Amino acid sequence: MSKKGLLLVGHGSKLPYNKELVESTASLISGKYPEFIVKCGFMNMNSPSIEEAMAEFQKESIDVLVVAPLFLAKGVHILKDIPSVIGIGEGKNRGVFSLDGRTIPLLYADPIGSDPLLAELMVKNARQALSAL
Amino acid sequence: MSKKGLLLVGHGSKLPYNKELVESTASLISGKYPEFIVKCGFMNMNSPSIEEAMAEFQKESIDVLVVAPLFLAKGVHILKDIPSVIGIGEGKNRGVFSLDGRTIPLLYADPIGSDPLLAELMVKNARQALSAL
Repeated sequence: MSKKGLLLVGHGSKLPYNKELVESTASLISGKYPEFIVKCGFMNMNSPSIEEAMAEFQKESIDVLVVAPLFLAKGVHILKDIPSVIGIGEGKNRGVFSLDGRTIPLLYADPIGSDPLLAELMVKNARQALSAL
Repeated sequence: MSKKGLLLVGHGSKLPYNKELVESTASLISGKYPEFIVKCGFMNMNSPSIEEAMAEFQKESIDVLVVAPLFLAKGVHILKDIPSVIGIGEGKNRGVFSLDGRTIPLLYADPIGSDPLLAELMVKNARQALSAL
């Protein structure tokens, strides 16, 4: 079965927590959704870089690559920096990825954005804090 | 009924998207969880600031204030900057809030962190991108 590549892009941090979050999210997705081959790349400070993570997909049998930023909201990183690195124009959500002599579609997903699930996550953490009362 | 104050703290951005995300998340929580009085404050670039948002709670009848950072993971902002602004020590998750001549507990919640719901949000956005194929 042909699979889909999913590159989770993290911001990166001097501290370990951003990288841990991105890697654990990748692991959760891999475990539940076997149609995706999931890898992580970081814009700043951590490795692999986005470019290095894209190079790792060269070894994989995929027919599409989705680049999904693990960011909360659009900002300069989402609108300019990551599109530049993955080779798509500003404002575009689509490009191509060269893989083993052929080109496959590259799709650029939105960041997390507003969603009832995000509100649930915030309430969960608020309630966890309240449990210390 | 006595209510709980919930201050969602956003990073802030020159662009409007971070503020929109924090405000829409506050609105989702207010609509679903009437036990919380929800306000937003921003660390950088947007208003109200965290201090201004805390001042707004002076008008409210609350018996506890939860400060919940709408951030993905721990980092310098979470570990040092926000604790300094809300008046708790580094590494602490608890302080006090002076409200109308009395003090109530102030609780500092964790950022979003790794969670199956976060993985679901990423898959949802990846599938949304794939729907353009």
